[in-house]
Amino acid sequence: MHPRFRLLLTPRQPLTANLRFRQHNTVGRTLLSSIGLKREFSASAKFNSKSSKPPPQIHMATTKTGQPLDRGTLDILLRRRLFYTPSFEIYGGVSGLYDYGPPGCALQANIVDTWRKHFVLEEDMMEVDCTMLTPHEVLKTSGHVDKFADWMCKDSKTGEIFRADHLVEEVLEARLKGDKQARGIKEEEDKEDEDDKKKKKKKVKEIKAIKLDDAVRLEYEETLAKIDNYDGKELGELIVKHNITNPATGGALEPPVSFNLMFSTSIGPSANLPGYLRPETAQGQFLTFSKLLEFNNAKMPFASASIGKSFRNEISPKSGLLRVREFLMAEIEHFVDPQKKSHPRFAEVKDIELRLLDKDVQLSGKTILTTKKIGDAVKEGIVDNETLGYFLARIFLFLTELGVDPEKLRFRQHMANEMAHYATDCWDAELLTSYGWVECVGCADRSAYDLTVHTKKTGQPLIVRENLENPVVWEEWDVDVDKKWMGPRFRKDAKKVEETIEAISQADREILAAKQAAGEKVMITVEGLGEVELEKVEIVKRQKQQYIREYTPNVIEPSFGIGRIFYSLIEHIYYTRPEDATRGVLAFPPKIAPTKVLIVPLSGNAEFVPWIEKITRTMRKAGIANRVDDSSASIGKRYARNDELGTPFGVTVDFQTVKDGTITLRERDGMKQIRASIEDIVAVVKAQVEGNGEPWEKIVEKFGEFTGQDLE
Amino acid sequence: MHPRFRLLLTPRQPLTANLRFRQHNTVGRTLLSSIGLKREFSASAKFNSKSSKPPPQIHMATTKTGQPLDRGTLDILLRRRLFYTPSFEIYGGVSGLYDYGPPGCALQANIVDTWRKHFVLEEDMMEVDCTMLTPHEVLKTSGHVDKFADWMCKDSKTGEIFRADHLVEEVLEARLKGDKQARGIKEEEDKEDEDDKKKKKKKVKEIKAIKLDDAVRLEYEETLAKIDNYDGKELGELIVKHNITNPATGGALEPPVSFNLMFSTSIGPSANLPGYLRPETAQGQFLTFSKLLEFNNAKMPFASASIGKSFRNEISPKSGLLRVREFLMAEIEHFVDPQKKSHPRFAEVKDIELRLLDKDVQLSGKTILTTKKIGDAVKEGIVDNETLGYFLARIFLFLTELGVDPEKLRFRQHMANEMAHYATDCWDAELLTSYGWVECVGCADRSAYDLTVHTKKTGQPLIVRENLENPVVWEEWDVDVDKKWMGPRFRKDAKKVEETIEAISQADREILAAKQAAGEKVMITVEGLGEVELEKVEIVKRQKQQYIREYTPNVIEPSFGIGRIFYSLIEHIYYTRPEDATRGVLAFPPKIAPTKVLIVPLSGNAEFVPWIEKITRTMRKAGIANRVDDSSASIGKRYARNDELGTPFGVTVDFQTVKDGTITLRERDGMKQIRASIEDIVAVVKAQVEGNGEPWEKIVEKFGEFTGQDLE
Repeated sequence: MHPRFRLLLTPRQPLTANLRFRQHNTVGRTLLSSIGLKREFSASAKFNSKSSKPPPQIHMATTKTGQPLDRGTLDILLRRRLFYTPSFEIYGGVSGLYDYGPPGCALQANIVDTWRKHFVLEEDMMEVDCTMLTPHEVLKTSGHVDKFADWMCKDSKTGEIFRADHLVEEVLEARLKGDKQARGIKEEEDKEDEDDKKKKKKKVKEIKAIKLDDAVRLEYEETLAKIDNYDGKELGELIVKHNITNPATGGALEPPVSFNLMFSTSIGPSANLPGYLRPETAQGQFLTFSKLLEFNNAKMPFASASIGKSFRNEISPKSGLLRVREFLMAEIEHFVDPQKKSHPRFAEVKDIELRLLDKDVQLSGKTILTTKKIGDAVKEGIVDNETLGYFLARIFLFLTELGVDPEKLRFRQHMANEMAHYATDCWDAELLTSYGWVECVGCADRSAYDLTVHTKKTGQPLIVRENLENPVVWEEWDVDVDKKWMGPRFRKDAKKVEETIEAISQADREILAAKQAAGEKVMITVEGLGEVELEKVEIVKRQKQQYIREYTPNVIEPSFGIGRIFYSLIEHIYYTRPEDATRGVLAFPPKIAPTKVLIVPLSGNAEFVPWIEKITRTMRKAGIANRVDDSSASIGKRYARNDELGTPFGVTVDFQTVKDGTITLRERDGMKQIRASIEDIVAVVKAQVEGNGEPWEKIVEKFGEFTGQDLE
Repeated sequence: MHPRFRLLLTPRQPLTANLRFRQHNTVGRTLLSSIGLKREFSASAKFNSKSSKPPPQIHMATTKTGQPLDRGTLDILLRRRLFYTPSFEIYGGVSGLYDYGPPGCALQANIVDTWRKHFVLEEDMMEVDCTMLTPHEVLKTSGHVDKFADWMCKDSKTGEIFRADHLVEEVLEARLKGDKQARGIKEEEDKEDEDDKKKKKKKVKEIKAIKLDDAVRLEYEETLAKIDNYDGKELGELIVKHNITNPATGGALEPPVSFNLMFSTSIGPSANLPGYLRPETAQGQFLTFSKLLEFNNAKMPFASASIGKSFRNEISPKSGLLRVREFLMAEIEHFVDPQKKSHPRFAEVKDIELRLLDKDVQLSGKTILTTKKIGDAVKEGIVDNETLGYFLARIFLFLTELGVDPEKLRFRQHMANEMAHYATDCWDAELLTSYGWVECVGCADRSAYDLTVHTKKTGQPLIVRENLENPVVWEEWDVDVDKKWMGPRFRKDAKKVEETIEAISQADREILAAKQAAGEKVMITVEGLGEVELEKVEIVKRQKQQYIREYTPNVIEPSFGIGRIFYSLIEHIYYTRPEDATRGVLAFPPKIAPTKVLIVPLSGNAEFVPWIEKITRTMRKAGIANRVDDSSASIGKRYARNDELGTPFGVTVDFQTVKDGTITLRERDGMKQIRASIEDIVAVVKAQVEGNGEPWEKIVEKFGEFTGQDLE
């Protein structure tokens, strides 16, 4: 196969394939962590080991209020409150599979709803719902069958399987740590490291204090900095060279083999239609392109969008919700004329400032963020085009609307060797968490790659035919042959002669025409026949016009990992009460919060019941998700429970309610209360939930702070 | 294995396993069509062939306006307007897999949104999102691995695979049809039958006019009436007996083998964790029961709910969207104390009248519907309990809110032999379509089956522990043994003696106590030791109290096939304009319609552009999904296009708009227009979309009908 075609078969770069957790690890380096999938570019392009080692991050994960974030405590909270829970736990669980409980499910639905309004409705995108089951051939064409894989190696004795790059990384890290111990260098972050060990189920359980040669230490560090870029053969060589074995048993490992990350299955009763669970939602959108174009009255540009589950059979998932085997994605495919990548609404966003980490800065070995207006970034050529820039700004607006901390959000550009060869430009929206910077949204200009490969494979043109207002006009020499003469003259060779004529260049035609005009014979050389005379031909110059332009659209693809946004957002909005470090609060914005209002009767008094019913009914009618807590726990305990659930408002029903129909409303973060009629309170909450309310201080000012309630 | 346990392993009855399309077929019978999955009860219970043959249905599928429904025309409309489209069509497609295009996707989202509000929010249910990937063991316990299967047979020469019951049915039907032809009995519904043949990809392409013996004809008809109830062996016997072969080649068929309908895959890199794609969402909810109970502060009853894709690897899918391999389900598991199946909100629904087809009527061979208040149906014992009745009424309200025609909605009770042995009662909400009555919602009281089998398998008690207000008090004889005496006295036999003492019945203890009181020795017989004296025991009567009651909740499960509701709803609301039979209209209620408003500028005049922008912005802010059609097609054509998309309202922008800021609003079905300011029009539409607007006639009355526009 021609190399060019081989390159075309390099798969598209999927969302998490580009994921890089930049972890502040235990040996004091920040490295491209191996938590990322094996990237496809690794075989063809390598980081320069010097330049690919960015300096340590200046940022650390903190709570919303700036305290150090204790991931373990947060995780316990999230499980206790059923934001998520390991799937099939009573059957022992399956790693990489998690269920969302009621608050997690509501939070996810609110994120998806916000996404749909922010992108699909606002931009009139065409949402599609394509199947997860995907036949082999489609994913063969996209490149996933051949390339969407990690390297694994097996302990032939125990049968245990390791992800090769992870194992090499862990073993070398452990040795470097042992070297430090042997040299008596104090470990700084022992506790965090212990937590990490438990969380991430490390294979290397024990650090041995063995001093390394300086050269060996350097080699290990360089290897670690490049760990994402080795292919299977190279990983195998590293395993042999550094004598890496099964950490538990010391057993020898087989050479790494490629393991495809797609779940395979078989469609239908005979085994002849192999298929996979899709690894991304994009392919379905590409295949529907022509129908969508027609649905859009053949107008360009347009975008399709899809929200749905995708699947990746990770070799050994860890990092909680960040690396799972089944996950929700939301993807946009914005199809655009490659010659017109401007965007009509770019002016609306051009002054939005983004924190950028461009490829040049990374190449220089730095991770210094530049804050820049997206308009300037496009003007200066840092971001390739307006449409791509428009989406980066829209992604920023979306994430901050959810409650993401803009200080912990950066846009990192892919470096040339990190991008698929066909991609024009690619930026990741990364959120800073306790796992490091996590890629939550990818935004790539994928050129015409995807539509082109499917067109080639199926013969169905996934193209745009555009009527040209001003037809393209040009002149051309035609060689008109008298077919009635040619057939009898050349017989079986007629076709060959015709093809030879067809192949005459415009320049040669002009020369022939000049000769003919000068009365000379028109002679051409035909393979196998030698020179022949074309007696009955005319060579004439004609004007040509083209009214239709055909092109394969380029695709700009913002791709959202909803589960990663879900988790990172929680880290951003989590804090503990200053007065009580054990009291965790999830400070979701009202719009995103799973439940908006907790309704608390002051006691189990029967007189309160009709009031509670009235309040819930009124709120439900106003579309406000609420929950009653009439348990016997103290009001303080009930509020604490709801701090953990992130419920922004609390309503109490007390004896004054029975008298005058007023209720109290308490805001979660400031804990200040107001007292007013049910109708007024519902109106206040509705405005807050819909995002068009006044700041809470103003509301307290307006209604007056209420402090009189007897909470006993 | 004990037979009782074997029975317990009968799988739960999944949604479509109970599906029965009652088709008015070509031989004039209405039968339990083979489109239904092989039901699990078939091996253990059989229909009586006489009583299981209900009389022909009196209802025919019609359009909303009562005309005969032409499914072929409707289907072309749905595909042209991209409600749905075969998946992977440019790769040749995969049967049973469909994508939803923009209007289909929006319609589906609106149905799901309505469902979530109607059930989850209204009833404070606990929504969960569990994984689709499910390990083998879970589905082994639920019974799906062993029993969730159809019978297939193979032509050993060509390799072609047939679903055995379908093939037998088709061949016998074709022979009966040939018999009719031979007897010169005219076919009534030739055209419809031709359509059916194409749509359903029948295997039997040709009807041969061969007369059958009367006895043979009768036998065929009786076989067809029972076709759903044969197991593989019986189907094999029928194939041999009636000499059924591959219809295309006449080739012999292998005996039927069981084909499991779950898509299998392997989780993780080693092959030792086999799994499946879930065939229903219910199992994830059952496994999370204890966590949900805790989340609910241990209060009963409560319901969980889940919306998500499920998968069934149909042997040969047909019937369009009604039988697909990947489909959206919405399931509720309402967990209830088996002793308290009343429902606190039953009074709210008790007067709702449902069209019931109960099991007794069906047993008597009839299909006459009874219209009955659900309160009376529960009182009379037709519906087993209040909670089940409550959900039937709520399902009725949900479906009619979507726009389902109540005249084409019935609740059919499962007959005893059709229900799983553990189920208490089961009703299907069936919608009349051109495919017959289609089961769209199942509603079953599944008793404690599901929680019990998972408890047994895992040892994790999925139970409720209830504090009893009044403890249960009783008296009991205790045999108190002095352990210090017993050990030395019996040594290695001490345990055996202790067990023997434990096993003494209360009656015997009373006798021993009396003897002891009378000064006699306490003698017992221990296996292997003979009679021994218990010197150091006291036999005393004590009062016992129990403060906690433990029980396994029963589950009432309403289970919704969203895709079936989607399709059946479309058949119910579709009609053609009386003035033009080629103009199809989808009369979605405004709330459900994919797009609410079509905005049409009267011409491409540039003056209209800012007005259109203002209108779309105002509508978007009001949450009204709208679409601009500024194509060059005539207004009439643009309206026709939107009739097909089911858009309930049309707004035009014309030269008067530029002058006075007014726009026109046209209602889809009556086609009457009003003219008012943008603000007034948006308010009118918003009220209609939210379902709290006045009837359209009132609005026309209020604003005055507008007829003055120049539509040229």
